[in-house]
Amino acid sequence: MKAEVVSVGTELLLGQTVDTNATQAGKLFASLGIDHYHRQTVGDNLARLTETLKLALSRADIVLTIGGLGPTQDDLTRDGVAAVLESPLVEDPALRDHLVELMRSRGIKMVESQYRQATRPQCAEPLSNPNGTAPGLVARKDGKTVFCLPGPPNEFNPMLEGPVKDALLKLGDGTILFSRTLRIVGIGEAALEEQMSDLLIDPEVTLAPYAKVGEVHLRLTTRAKSTEEGESKVKPMADEIYRRIPEFVYAEGEDSLPALLIKLLTERSQTVSVAESCTGGLLGAAFTSINGSSAAFRGGFLTYTADLKRDLAGVAQSTLNAHGTVSEPTAAEMATGTRFRLKTDYAISITGVAGLDPLQEPDGEKPSGLVYIGIAGPNGVTVNRYTFTAGGKTSRDTIRQRAVAWALASFRNVLVSDSR
Amino acid sequence: MKAEVVSVGTELLLGQTVDTNATQAGKLFASLGIDHYHRQTVGDNLARLTETLKLALSRADIVLTIGGLGPTQDDLTRDGVAAVLESPLVEDPALRDHLVELMRSRGIKMVESQYRQATRPQCAEPLSNPNGTAPGLVARKDGKTVFCLPGPPNEFNPMLEGPVKDALLKLGDGTILFSRTLRIVGIGEAALEEQMSDLLIDPEVTLAPYAKVGEVHLRLTTRAKSTEEGESKVKPMADEIYRRIPEFVYAEGEDSLPALLIKLLTERSQTVSVAESCTGGLLGAAFTSINGSSAAFRGGFLTYTADLKRDLAGVAQSTLNAHGTVSEPTAAEMATGTRFRLKTDYAISITGVAGLDPLQEPDGEKPSGLVYIGIAGPNGVTVNRYTFTAGGKTSRDTIRQRAVAWALASFRNVLVSDSR
Repeated sequence: MKAEVVSVGTELLLGQTVDTNATQAGKLFASLGIDHYHRQTVGDNLARLTETLKLALSRADIVLTIGGLGPTQDDLTRDGVAAVLESPLVEDPALRDHLVELMRSRGIKMVESQYRQATRPQCAEPLSNPNGTAPGLVARKDGKTVFCLPGPPNEFNPMLEGPVKDALLKLGDGTILFSRTLRIVGIGEAALEEQMSDLLIDPEVTLAPYAKVGEVHLRLTTRAKSTEEGESKVKPMADEIYRRIPEFVYAEGEDSLPALLIKLLTERSQTVSVAESCTGGLLGAAFTSINGSSAAFRGGFLTYTADLKRDLAGVAQSTLNAHGTVSEPTAAEMATGTRFRLKTDYAISITGVAGLDPLQEPDGEKPSGLVYIGIAGPNGVTVNRYTFTAGGKTSRDTIRQRAVAWALASFRNVLVSDSR
Repeated sequence: MKAEVVSVGTELLLGQTVDTNATQAGKLFASLGIDHYHRQTVGDNLARLTETLKLALSRADIVLTIGGLGPTQDDLTRDGVAAVLESPLVEDPALRDHLVELMRSRGIKMVESQYRQATRPQCAEPLSNPNGTAPGLVARKDGKTVFCLPGPPNEFNPMLEGPVKDALLKLGDGTILFSRTLRIVGIGEAALEEQMSDLLIDPEVTLAPYAKVGEVHLRLTTRAKSTEEGESKVKPMADEIYRRIPEFVYAEGEDSLPALLIKLLTERSQTVSVAESCTGGLLGAAFTSINGSSAAFRGGFLTYTADLKRDLAGVAQSTLNAHGTVSEPTAAEMATGTRFRLKTDYAISITGVAGLDPLQEPDGEKPSGLVYIGIAGPNGVTVNRYTFTAGGKTSRDTIRQRAVAWALASFRNVLVSDSR
């Protein structure tokens, strides 16, 4: 079975938007064992869009369009699909009602153009979009299937992983691509690959490392007739990896590190708080991105200035004077002070130089990328020092993201060792 | 003049690599006023690559291939271009000498396959690659020009901006595409388009809206002989947009809303702090993502629990009892309390139901997506109520991102009105 992606939008061709949606679609096709030989990108022009869709349908069984489903004159995917499938555009009363209700609940006045979003080619069914106004579409004709998804990634991704994936699974040829992903922190990609070099050449199970910010994912994939067969083919290699690096595999599948930490804390009825300087709230945002985080995450301090490190997190002025804001003693006192003041079982502190901000701290002479992470808990406080930089050119964003990833990883190590 | 990009590489179709090179190429074509109607992506397969190149050459004057110039069996761009231009592959002695010298200087033993990189279609000339072993190629035939560049971005980008841009400037008809982007918050895409409907059909200047999270960008584009001519052609429409919606245009070009706010505050020697509940640090993270934010951003409170709203941000227990944590009075007191305790000119509070977290608050009966945003400043406190949801299924991430975007927009309105 062959799939082809058609990305629609002049902004893609003008270079204003990077097409990460197409990448996600490619990943999904690969994971399901669907062949994917071509991708086309076309602007907001009906004639060219129709011609592009025709070519895609001539060589693929599944065509996935991305974008062009909004309310404006430029949004032509509905028209293009209607033309190429020779199925007239009709207004769907249920879609119209949903749209009216949606706008009413947001307190937005409905304008005429928005009713375009309630139309669909007669042969198509709508796919609901929980994160936006534009519904997706799925149309089946002459053995071909066309999926149309909206372009904003926060709308596209859940629909790709939800209804599109479900529909694709039903279209398959009987074999599936079974995979299992081990999530690993505390060891670099190259060192990991060296430890697993013999497993990388296994003929039955493909082992692939993917470097993420602050962690590595090991993906084990095999082709199988059923999930059960896939599981039993992959299990021996997964067991072997656990045997070799038990301390580094922190979770499997979609469980993120913040989700795992919230789960561990909740099971133990323990709580955590944060004190953030250079990350400015990113660590708190990581915890609170998890549903149910309020069972374990209480809150924290954003102490971007030296005096707030003192007044809020309780760092002694003498410590700041003697060691500066970016230092091991300051990180330690930020964590212990925050733990004490917010009455949590654990507190995590981050203080560092995110870079390119000469006004940030009186520690101007400390190098960009230098970050201290403190963890205070029932058994005392530990501080780790990191240098997240490569020749001073690492971006502010990257340094901050790595600081959060390693703070979470350090916290996991403390939690695991405290439970022994 | 029309250009088309052909991105070559199975890794692109498998979703292992995001095609940022194609985005860069699109930007360059747009800046030079070269029409760019199609992009194709194809895997490492000679038959499909040749067919793809044929289609591109049939409709474009300039074809730019990306990738497939390395030494391995999978690197087939040279072969594909040779086939489609009907020009045999020959070994170039100068390229061979350069390659041998390069390997010698790096202390790498030359393997046979690497000599593939010294071959080129007879009709093509090499383009030197200062950052890698694979030279680029440029071939001209029957009025068409084919550029071939290597895939690694650190090799691709300098070659695109160097020899390719130089060659394109010589091919051009002398006109450029001039554009100006107005960044807008506080009005939806559809309502905006309705207000600008007469401008959307201007024959000289193209006006296009792009929806972003919490904001909309309006891009004005025109073809001109020079930057100066472009500026003067676009100015009347830009002036007209400012006249119609002066309160909604917050910046132009690349300036983000947090960057603008930090700039405004710094110019006025004013400071801001935050008190975040459901966003858990995302607002602080937005401010501190900006270089130089420490001149205006001091810090804040993450008050995820009701008692921390009281103990840190100073919300009265009676207010919490009477109205709950997600309420207008609580948002108001969070902002005023934080402003007072952190001694900043402004404080922004966010309290709401991000959704799917039954434990978050005692306000379980309040609907997911309900968010109150408070802004306390020298002239008092204002609170806005928002419902960021669509049928209760909007993701937690989306609700949190919108809350941050609208908090920044509300804050801008207060700052602008305070300066009058």
